[in-house]
Amino acid sequence: MELIDALRGTGAVREFQDRPVDRDVMARVLDTARFAPNGGNQQSWRVILVEDPATKAAVRDLYVPGWLEYLEMRKAGVQPWAALGDRTLEEAPIAAARAITGDDATAAAGGFAAHFDQVPVMAVILADLRLLAATDRDLGRYTLVGGASVYPFVWSVLLAAHAEGLGGVVTTMTTTREPEVRDLLGVPDHFALAAVLALGYPVRFPRNLRRDPVESFATVDAFDGPPVTSP
Amino acid sequence: MELIDALRGTGAVREFQDRPVDRDVMARVLDTARFAPNGGNQQSWRVILVEDPATKAAVRDLYVPGWLEYLEMRKAGVQPWAALGDRTLEEAPIAAARAITGDDATAAAGGFAAHFDQVPVMAVILADLRLLAATDRDLGRYTLVGGASVYPFVWSVLLAAHAEGLGGVVTTMTTTREPEVRDLLGVPDHFALAAVLALGYPVRFPRNLRRDPVESFATVDAFDGPPVTSP
Repeated sequence: MELIDALRGTGAVREFQDRPVDRDVMARVLDTARFAPNGGNQQSWRVILVEDPATKAAVRDLYVPGWLEYLEMRKAGVQPWAALGDRTLEEAPIAAARAITGDDATAAAGGFAAHFDQVPVMAVILADLRLLAATDRDLGRYTLVGGASVYPFVWSVLLAAHAEGLGGVVTTMTTTREPEVRDLLGVPDHFALAAVLALGYPVRFPRNLRRDPVESFATVDAFDGPPVTSP
Repeated sequence: MELIDALRGTGAVREFQDRPVDRDVMARVLDTARFAPNGGNQQSWRVILVEDPATKAAVRDLYVPGWLEYLEMRKAGVQPWAALGDRTLEEAPIAAARAITGDDATAAAGGFAAHFDQVPVMAVILADLRLLAATDRDLGRYTLVGGASVYPFVWSVLLAAHAEGLGGVVTTMTTTREPEVRDLLGVPDHFALAAVLALGYPVRFPRNLRRDPVESFATVDAFDGPPVTSP
């Protein structure tokens, strides 16, 4: 597979064929992803491939509540879990989401979320907090630099999976229930739940991903400098 | 360029040929990188290509202090800026680094850091904190999930640059001086400094990157489940 085609054409896939994915295929994918860049070559990532049906269902049940909160916040016109914003606006939609429980929650989640236990590959990605270089630790803002050592790896998993004919999606909503995921999978406290990936052979690959042009986000020499123009 | 070769073989490059990089080349690189996955397709990234020599020198002067702190912490056997760890161990090495100032600091930094102003391409990557879905915002630990919406983009810049014959490296140490970088480049307060990338035509591409095997970081069904074996 050609690099540029992969970088431009690996969009989110949430519908999969029934066809299972051999663990050997995932071993090849991870064998490539491990070469991702990361701070000080500390390789802080850990991966759990969840295959047991009951455990997959338990992860789904920890995914659904966050998804419902996301849906209610979007419906209310609120940026979900914004790192910076007016949190009082989130209170009503989050309360509305939390009022839906049990089978009603799964039904309300619908589609991908309701069937999250049936994804062919469920890959839980963890990051060892002891190994992350957190250079934004003391800035008094929401921190994110530690992610520089794990999310390139996550993107490499998706890209290497694409070369195997697989598609998928990165989800971070389960992290709202990180303590429960830790208990479920026996994860030590010093690991963060960075993402859960769903992967499988897609019903179809997305085409024509929508993104803003280069001049909308790139400038020269200053934030309000002249734009870099699209090629 | 073949995808799997790029994912396995894009290591850090810190020595560049004198040859300049056309802004058109960078426009092509950014035009590909903008298709990176990100939460809710909010595309929170902003890029500043720093070309002015005096501004590049000013960024170098904000990179060097963090680099010296990194060197002193490594020398003392301390994990630099760990997201979780014993911070009292960092105090002496950080104080030692801060005692070195001015031209002495540049000289002590040496190599890549001392000549950081001379990198052919200096790309400052910002993330809009208002647009990041920070699902780990309330967990009482160092946060990183917001990085899921910017570091895949950063990795795509490096990969797309590789296809253009460029190499480079992601640095996050300048973020220790984020307020000063904001002042220098006129960046609004609601943007985080995610990374500074150095790019150029390499003196040589690194070979045989060192990484641990799949069975060291991947298991099935639980953190201490059976390992996924290397292909």
